[in-house]
Amino acid sequence: MNIGTRVPMTDGPPKVTGQAIYADDLRLPNMLYGKILRSPHAHARIISINTSKAERLPGVMGVVTGKDAPAKYGILPIGHDETAFSIDRVRYVGDEVAAVCATSEQIAEEALELIEVEYEILPAFVTPEEAMGCEDESLWLHHDRKRNIEKQYHHHFGDVEKGFQEALDSGGAVRFDKYYNPRVTHVPMEPHACVANWEHEGKVTLWTSTQTPHYVHRTLAVVLDMPMSSIRVIKPFVGGGFGGKSETFTHEVAACLLAKKTCRPVKFNFTREEVFYAHRGRPEQYVELKTGVAKDGRITAVEAKVVQDGGAYCSYGVVTILYSGALIAALYDIPNIKFDGYRVLTNKPACGPMRGHGTVGVRFGFESQLDMLAAEIGMDAGELRLKNKLKPNTITVNDLRVTSYGYDKCIEKVMEASDWRNKRSKMPYGKGVGMAGSHYVSGAANSIIRSKLPHSTVSIKIDYDGGVTVYTGAAEIGQGTETIHAQIVAEEMGIELSRIRIVAADSALTPVDLGSYSSRVTFMAGNAAKEAARDIKMQLFRAAAELLGESPEHLVARDEKIFPRDEPHRSITYQEALLACIEQGGTLIAKGTYTPPPESQGGSFRGAGVGPGVAYSYAAQVAEVTVDPETGLFTVDKIWAAHDCGRALNLLTVEGQVEGSVWMGLGQAVAEEQIFENGKTMNPGLLEYKSASSLESPPIETFIVETIDPEGPFGAKEAGEGSLAATIPAVANAIYDAIGVRINDLPLSPERILKAIEEQKKRS
Amino acid sequence: MNIGTRVPMTDGPPKVTGQAIYADDLRLPNMLYGKILRSPHAHARIISINTSKAERLPGVMGVVTGKDAPAKYGILPIGHDETAFSIDRVRYVGDEVAAVCATSEQIAEEALELIEVEYEILPAFVTPEEAMGCEDESLWLHHDRKRNIEKQYHHHFGDVEKGFQEALDSGGAVRFDKYYNPRVTHVPMEPHACVANWEHEGKVTLWTSTQTPHYVHRTLAVVLDMPMSSIRVIKPFVGGGFGGKSETFTHEVAACLLAKKTCRPVKFNFTREEVFYAHRGRPEQYVELKTGVAKDGRITAVEAKVVQDGGAYCSYGVVTILYSGALIAALYDIPNIKFDGYRVLTNKPACGPMRGHGTVGVRFGFESQLDMLAAEIGMDAGELRLKNKLKPNTITVNDLRVTSYGYDKCIEKVMEASDWRNKRSKMPYGKGVGMAGSHYVSGAANSIIRSKLPHSTVSIKIDYDGGVTVYTGAAEIGQGTETIHAQIVAEEMGIELSRIRIVAADSALTPVDLGSYSSRVTFMAGNAAKEAARDIKMQLFRAAAELLGESPEHLVARDEKIFPRDEPHRSITYQEALLACIEQGGTLIAKGTYTPPPESQGGSFRGAGVGPGVAYSYAAQVAEVTVDPETGLFTVDKIWAAHDCGRALNLLTVEGQVEGSVWMGLGQAVAEEQIFENGKTMNPGLLEYKSASSLESPPIETFIVETIDPEGPFGAKEAGEGSLAATIPAVANAIYDAIGVRINDLPLSPERILKAIEEQKKRS
Repeated sequence: MNIGTRVPMTDGPPKVTGQAIYADDLRLPNMLYGKILRSPHAHARIISINTSKAERLPGVMGVVTGKDAPAKYGILPIGHDETAFSIDRVRYVGDEVAAVCATSEQIAEEALELIEVEYEILPAFVTPEEAMGCEDESLWLHHDRKRNIEKQYHHHFGDVEKGFQEALDSGGAVRFDKYYNPRVTHVPMEPHACVANWEHEGKVTLWTSTQTPHYVHRTLAVVLDMPMSSIRVIKPFVGGGFGGKSETFTHEVAACLLAKKTCRPVKFNFTREEVFYAHRGRPEQYVELKTGVAKDGRITAVEAKVVQDGGAYCSYGVVTILYSGALIAALYDIPNIKFDGYRVLTNKPACGPMRGHGTVGVRFGFESQLDMLAAEIGMDAGELRLKNKLKPNTITVNDLRVTSYGYDKCIEKVMEASDWRNKRSKMPYGKGVGMAGSHYVSGAANSIIRSKLPHSTVSIKIDYDGGVTVYTGAAEIGQGTETIHAQIVAEEMGIELSRIRIVAADSALTPVDLGSYSSRVTFMAGNAAKEAARDIKMQLFRAAAELLGESPEHLVARDEKIFPRDEPHRSITYQEALLACIEQGGTLIAKGTYTPPPESQGGSFRGAGVGPGVAYSYAAQVAEVTVDPETGLFTVDKIWAAHDCGRALNLLTVEGQVEGSVWMGLGQAVAEEQIFENGKTMNPGLLEYKSASSLESPPIETFIVETIDPEGPFGAKEAGEGSLAATIPAVANAIYDAIGVRINDLPLSPERILKAIEEQKKRS
Repeated sequence: MNIGTRVPMTDGPPKVTGQAIYADDLRLPNMLYGKILRSPHAHARIISINTSKAERLPGVMGVVTGKDAPAKYGILPIGHDETAFSIDRVRYVGDEVAAVCATSEQIAEEALELIEVEYEILPAFVTPEEAMGCEDESLWLHHDRKRNIEKQYHHHFGDVEKGFQEALDSGGAVRFDKYYNPRVTHVPMEPHACVANWEHEGKVTLWTSTQTPHYVHRTLAVVLDMPMSSIRVIKPFVGGGFGGKSETFTHEVAACLLAKKTCRPVKFNFTREEVFYAHRGRPEQYVELKTGVAKDGRITAVEAKVVQDGGAYCSYGVVTILYSGALIAALYDIPNIKFDGYRVLTNKPACGPMRGHGTVGVRFGFESQLDMLAAEIGMDAGELRLKNKLKPNTITVNDLRVTSYGYDKCIEKVMEASDWRNKRSKMPYGKGVGMAGSHYVSGAANSIIRSKLPHSTVSIKIDYDGGVTVYTGAAEIGQGTETIHAQIVAEEMGIELSRIRIVAADSALTPVDLGSYSSRVTFMAGNAAKEAARDIKMQLFRAAAELLGESPEHLVARDEKIFPRDEPHRSITYQEALLACIEQGGTLIAKGTYTPPPESQGGSFRGAGVGPGVAYSYAAQVAEVTVDPETGLFTVDKIWAAHDCGRALNLLTVEGQVEGSVWMGLGQAVAEEQIFENGKTMNPGLLEYKSASSLESPPIETFIVETIDPEGPFGAKEAGEGSLAATIPAVANAIYDAIGVRINDLPLSPERILKAIEEQKKRS
């Protein structure tokens, strides 16, 4: 039994001993170094590119530009608006124009300066308002995106006006508030990096730091105009992604193109500045919320308008804006929801998915507003949340399918642990507690590129040596994927974890898994791994049954033994059964697959364009803060975080994911913000972009709430994203509790607090 | 259709472009370099070893000696007489005493000189005669090998005395001759090399240049005292083996031990001199042959005595001496065979298997003697050989199981092509032609370590990208294994070769195959690959059948299409069938296995201890020579070589194997010989050991004779070894034809020829 215990991550030792090979650790013979020339302009036409001087620089082995890879692509089938390099237009400061490879990074950088690009500068749109206001078609970032609107959604489920009226009629309250979320980014420790190796007979291998090797594989086939079977994509160790490495990037294409051109391996390794250009983080968002609460605390209606500044390309933007509306539901029981969402193109680096994808901006607003509504109707904010709990196995008004539901237990847990009832509104001025909730889905029910293919296949090989090799396409990016695969297989087979070896995310070796995004891996690849392990266990059982004179159905596997249920004394060993099995049919192989159930997919999600998903996780948090009203400086003294992850397969990794989410949310709450001046990123570095370090973490007390999900492997559901969104409003609500001021604009900076205190003073 | 065409080897491009990674090309971070301390004495007791000075040398990171790995091992279960390092006794000049690893090769070498070993020198046995004559038990190389005899066989099938009498009674002839074969060795271009990496949690990975990764894997588990599942053995590119890398060597154990000791990767790369010590080549052999031929040309009886100087350890010696007797049969129809074989231990490097394993020494004698017998009864040597042909599907007198048989066609082919009938005995003095035949088995019917496990499993994975990954444990050592796997799978599935990717010989990734020895891979792994491909094809057929409204049994796959037999216009593409198949059940996986049929195994091989094997290949050759009687110098002007390989799966690689065999045989015929002085190897280098280069190759005209073997994949059988043994006697017989002298001692040097001419003159 390893499930439910504290299992150290299997990839921990190589990481801490330095044996782990990240993309930048790869050294192939004769390897060249690539660099990308980027636009200095936020918006401009390319008149001409002259690379001849660069090509003549000694040590330069190859140069590529837009004409070498003209195919359009993008992660979403409805958002194919990128080319590897800008062909006629650059759309943000940092947009890719050309790439060179040379015998050293220094020479490659020198060569960039020798590439002559003639631009015709165009007016740049740096706010959604400006962009949406542009009637001049020739200036739109993409000609088929009218007034720079990438996508708009207008949903109305139930009847919000009726809901608001009901709230007022009951003596409840209705509030309208505006919230602002700046653009934030993932800041993984490892910058984007890759190595391409052009092989004989027109084949290429790309090692790349990615969360989605399968989608990179598909895109490369299009952009390189090669059959997928001639391309091998391998994900080496990855030093963090958080959503920022979830699609194909220019350097990946460039490495392949340059490797082909030079017949030598080519490496790209981003500078930290380039990571900020590659970005694909959380967009700046303008959120308007109107919420009604009846006198008894029931939420009667929510109306939301969200405008997202998506930057220059679509990326996942259509999903981000959709989720921001759709995921208003499924946390509370809300009968009426109206949503108007706008994803807008601007001349800034493209945004994309970031941990808590789509949910964080609106959740900050909603949980803040709920706090105020609770005060208005004179109800405790925790009690109000409990009042609006959902029932398990519910279909929400907008057709989201909730299976297991542990939000209420999460709330009770943090209320009790934080001594909420004795603290809320009862602490001295300057000290306060705040609560908020959040949730996330265990993967999207539909694959990004629609098909009937399974979302995950896992296969297993066992031979004479007794080692168990698990082949999975799932991408370990630090979240514990490989450990979880190993645990699930060992648990299902009743064998030691040390027997398991994970071979992952290598298109030549491993089955397809859609990738590490949307918190899908434990749930989906986990289910596939469990099925594969069960298949191979049954093979062993059939061989064991002959030896034991039993029927295979009566056997169980535990502690490396196989025995008839309730008769452990009549056991044979795993190794004995294995040998008997191999003698009969050679090396054991098996597979398992996962496809979301039909009821979770497709059409039933009214008007939304994505499936309603599978298995929501739930989180509730209480933050305690101390605010200095003289300076606006504040500290988060402690956070109590409860997370309903279904069944916790590994206590250690679930806690790690919750703590990581809380801390990442906290960074966004208190400090993080990308700053632009005329479209230029002003703080593209770790000194300037204030991502907090672990030294600044408050104590986080984590509570795992287990609601055994009927569809998850051993009952598990997601743990990696759902906790993030709660942290920000919990801190905002705590600041309100401490000093009575409400900050609706992120980050919750001392400046904003001080300004709010001053305004409060003026009003009083 | 790729089978039967000229398919360039799939591993050719990486080899010629330098992309291929051999063991010595591996560079792991923090890697250390290992060196082995070897005995300067042919035979001595070790009184003491003091490594402390070496350990103190700056840069030295670890030292190991015999006490670090005391377990006995050996490739044959009945020959476990080695330890990784000598513990109490050294048995040859070059025997391993200790190993060090250091930050550079230079430091490691310096450290060797600081290791103090006190020896008590013992008398050394340098000839089998001396060794067998020793009655002093305390001096025997291994205490349980009485009078240094490793193994003796005394077989008698039929009645040879009756046979000889029959020959004489018919007016035929009986001859008794002695033949001498010196010790020769493989000289692969790549010296032995390996890298061991100690991983977290007590696991180790060894990359090693080996022909038998599975047996190395098993032995390491014993010697390192670790479970096999904690050991991963990977065969990188291998630069030739020819039998010389078919078991576990000290440097492989040492690398693992030192990696464990230092927690750093450790590399060993042999000097050429060390390759001569590791050796395991063909033993020096003293062959006595008595053969009777009836007046009509029928061979009536053969009596053979063979004494082999096996060197200091058993290695494969028990098999070598057995094969030298057993394989007198199965080429000709011989009713009576008597064999007395002695494998003797001496104080020289251990011998082992070398291309043509066990057959070459006796075949040289037998085919020479047959030439003389033909002359004595006044029959053409070619006709005599044809007279004694076997029938297909024969069990020989010693129970060898012949299935397909194309020796007679081979003889006819080379007789015709060489214009034999107009040349033999008809050319001017100094010019002559000679003929000889040979054969080999397509793998041993019994695995080296007896078990019921299949000899080969091959598995296949196909995913959405349409690429076909073939997992095989088979070891590509330059002979074309991977190409053949790819061809077989592509052919069976009716798809392009370019789709196939071979993943081979990595214990963590691939199923077990017993290794590249005894010419078994095309036959055995090929059959497994074909079965796996058929299984996965049937999966595609079942999906295609639904789309086509047909029964799967009526479908055929060709040119990347699947269609009802005889209705190619009603086709769907491979990719369409694949997608339908993956939609139903995820990534496709399948496996195939090969186990030799029961009738080829075990008990039926009278007294021999190995199975009678599967599928013999046949070869006939004619050599034409020009001898200068003044100097004894001669040139081989041309060789016509015909080889019956069953079905030629790849004309290019079969021809390559035949030419390689001929040339390797030719080297042994004309020049190669290991020279010893008091047990010390006197010519351990490429300058001194005269292995011929390709520049010295005569024209070789190769004829492929196809007898479709009923048990081989597409009818194939072995091609890599069977042609070697014929070359030596063909040249000897040609020299006889040219100048009328008979050389019975190898190599056929000018000195020996000159001496024979002088003796001839004396006699005449």
